[in-house]
Amino acid sequence: MTDYEKFLSRAGQSMRESAIRKMGTVLAQARDVISFAPGYPAEDSFPWQAFSEIARELLSGTDGSVLQYGPTRGFRPLREAIVALMKERDIQTSVDQLVVSTGSQQGLDLVARVLLDPGDVVLLELPSYTGAITAFRNVGASLVGVQQDDAGIDLEALERAWAAEHSAGRRVKFLYLVPNFQNPTGLLLGLDRRQAVLEWAARRDVLIVEDDPYKDLFFPDVASVADTRPIAADDRDGRVVYLSSFSKTLAPGFRVAWMHAPEALAAKFELAKQAEDLCSGGLDQRVVYEACRRGLLARQLPTLRAHYQHKRDVMVRGLRAKLGNTVYWPDPRGGFFLWLRLAEPLRSDELLPLAQARGVIFVTGSAFFVDGWGRQHLRLSFSAPSPDRIEEGVSRLAAAIGDLADASANVGAREAR
Amino acid sequence: MTDYEKFLSRAGQSMRESAIRKMGTVLAQARDVISFAPGYPAEDSFPWQAFSEIARELLSGTDGSVLQYGPTRGFRPLREAIVALMKERDIQTSVDQLVVSTGSQQGLDLVARVLLDPGDVVLLELPSYTGAITAFRNVGASLVGVQQDDAGIDLEALERAWAAEHSAGRRVKFLYLVPNFQNPTGLLLGLDRRQAVLEWAARRDVLIVEDDPYKDLFFPDVASVADTRPIAADDRDGRVVYLSSFSKTLAPGFRVAWMHAPEALAAKFELAKQAEDLCSGGLDQRVVYEACRRGLLARQLPTLRAHYQHKRDVMVRGLRAKLGNTVYWPDPRGGFFLWLRLAEPLRSDELLPLAQARGVIFVTGSAFFVDGWGRQHLRLSFSAPSPDRIEEGVSRLAAAIGDLADASANVGAREAR
Repeated sequence: MTDYEKFLSRAGQSMRESAIRKMGTVLAQARDVISFAPGYPAEDSFPWQAFSEIARELLSGTDGSVLQYGPTRGFRPLREAIVALMKERDIQTSVDQLVVSTGSQQGLDLVARVLLDPGDVVLLELPSYTGAITAFRNVGASLVGVQQDDAGIDLEALERAWAAEHSAGRRVKFLYLVPNFQNPTGLLLGLDRRQAVLEWAARRDVLIVEDDPYKDLFFPDVASVADTRPIAADDRDGRVVYLSSFSKTLAPGFRVAWMHAPEALAAKFELAKQAEDLCSGGLDQRVVYEACRRGLLARQLPTLRAHYQHKRDVMVRGLRAKLGNTVYWPDPRGGFFLWLRLAEPLRSDELLPLAQARGVIFVTGSAFFVDGWGRQHLRLSFSAPSPDRIEEGVSRLAAAIGDLADASANVGAREAR
Repeated sequence: MTDYEKFLSRAGQSMRESAIRKMGTVLAQARDVISFAPGYPAEDSFPWQAFSEIARELLSGTDGSVLQYGPTRGFRPLREAIVALMKERDIQTSVDQLVVSTGSQQGLDLVARVLLDPGDVVLLELPSYTGAITAFRNVGASLVGVQQDDAGIDLEALERAWAAEHSAGRRVKFLYLVPNFQNPTGLLLGLDRRQAVLEWAARRDVLIVEDDPYKDLFFPDVASVADTRPIAADDRDGRVVYLSSFSKTLAPGFRVAWMHAPEALAAKFELAKQAEDLCSGGLDQRVVYEACRRGLLARQLPTLRAHYQHKRDVMVRGLRAKLGNTVYWPDPRGGFFLWLRLAEPLRSDELLPLAQARGVIFVTGSAFFVDGWGRQHLRLSFSAPSPDRIEEGVSRLAAAIGDLADASANVGAREAR
């Protein structure tokens, strides 16, 4: 039997590989490739010794539930710790409004399944996070991008997009946003716009799905905690579903993230999760809980901010020195990413094979656009490589851009003949 | 805002709580309740010290990838270990046919999403595993039950069910089966029937989804490894998707299970998993891998067989002594469950509150039926409680059945007047 197509669902037929994960595969197969592709946190920043100590205590066997099935909502003490952590973010919540998810990717998938029917519309930033795009597409949603400028999503474009969908008789279920150090652009949504987005959502009766994995990772030289105030902090209306994660601040291997939502929706996310994986990892949740309880997470944050700020510096310095004013990027004020625009007529999908040949990879811009745009852009992730490797990677990238520019010039010259 | 119904997808609107998970909640809230409800493995059988030792080594920090994001398919050495483990089950596979899933529940959900459109038909045993029922229902599939006898699914009933669906113009995508120590009946599908099911599936061009978490847990006094030969072992045609798990043999808290499928389908499961949670837990997968590599899993199995066989003995002895011939059950030859049928006119949903009042819980039979039947049955799980607690629980259950019989007799007497 070779023809399995006929057994596939419509979703199964249309599933496509994420460009980011594909780059992960390239990386796994190649030697001496410097990867600016996946948004991996720096492994040498993980508090290994503390994790080891915590795991030893948890695996003593005195509490059998550590390795047992657990509640679908998540380990209750962890949810209580998240309530406290959310309070520091000025978000009022309770254990009944929280669901622990197997990474924020699961949170996005649960949002998709609980809220979206085929044909329902999601509005999102242009560009936006590929993992969200994939989760929403897998349930047949229609994705409509909204332009951003350097202060984030454009409110007038948002209203126009909504109006166009509305007048075409389509149902806009929610607006998906990454307000803090957006993936892929690294942009920070202005505080006034956050307020305006919330008011707009109430006016148009649309939910907001606020995805906030990078909040704690602002760069102190150009941003402060005040700049990262979540939209959910001002939500008096129960209109915001808020997602955040321990993947970028503790470690992604634990697959522990959380969702905050109005109780009625949290209950539905719990049911959807029940059918997806019953519960998240028991040991993982307890390690993360202990990291919260013992102050390990709080102690990590200033270190991580300095760590990633420094790597941003190294990348930005390298780009300025090697590529001068032939490329443009908005300076990242936090997070893991730098969003590079190539000079005309260069295209990032044409650059990628040349960059691979030079030993450096990234994610092409088009992966983040729902409308086919983005070929002029690429996402560079400075979080994982060491400063030395970032410098070397930028040199390789500059050489590859030189290769592409030469090739373009030759084509131009031939065409001119 | 209080009305969230209008934001829900059709799936979101129809999601219902699993009866098994609900009992888990009851348990968490109650004191001194003996639970025969969830199919939890015995925590005191977990190899705590070995796990602790493995975790200590893994968390030394020498391999940063332990806590990093990993490949969606799963940690490659673990997949290689699973290839070897599958060979012992006489199933030929390769790393490209395997996907590590976040528990078998995720495997079931991936199967649902990749294979089923709303209205597609799944044939399954009557009764069947609730977690599968929920996953298939969440994508809008139509579930059609097939009668079993003491040797498992009835082939004639299977053909009749298929023919009825086929002639009504509906598409039967697959047959879902738990051939070894089925959840909830504990039944073992006869070897001749396994062969017949495979031939039938080829004839009718239907896939088989074989869910096999209990294979290794046969009871040596009444069964042998030969009795548990998977259907997938004789699949020359690429017609079987096979799911199994480390949850019952190592520990469920790791959330590590696997799927074996033809390469074309495995690739689709990988894509679906990418959008569901990116990857399973990194530390968890490595602990499980080390448990395979170091022979820990292999050493566990005889111990576990003896452990659960003994608990089965204790439960069966108690039921015989306390309930004599007023109840019926097929003797479990492996696994975690005993499927009890009450004498007429007793009903398990009426028994449950009386049992709770006596301090014992179970799952009512109707949770496992897709057609509203099963009120005469209950599932008793003997895996988690200690032998003493099993004895005491059976006494409480017998008392509750006495309460119900008295109440029924009174009603009968009143009605006779």
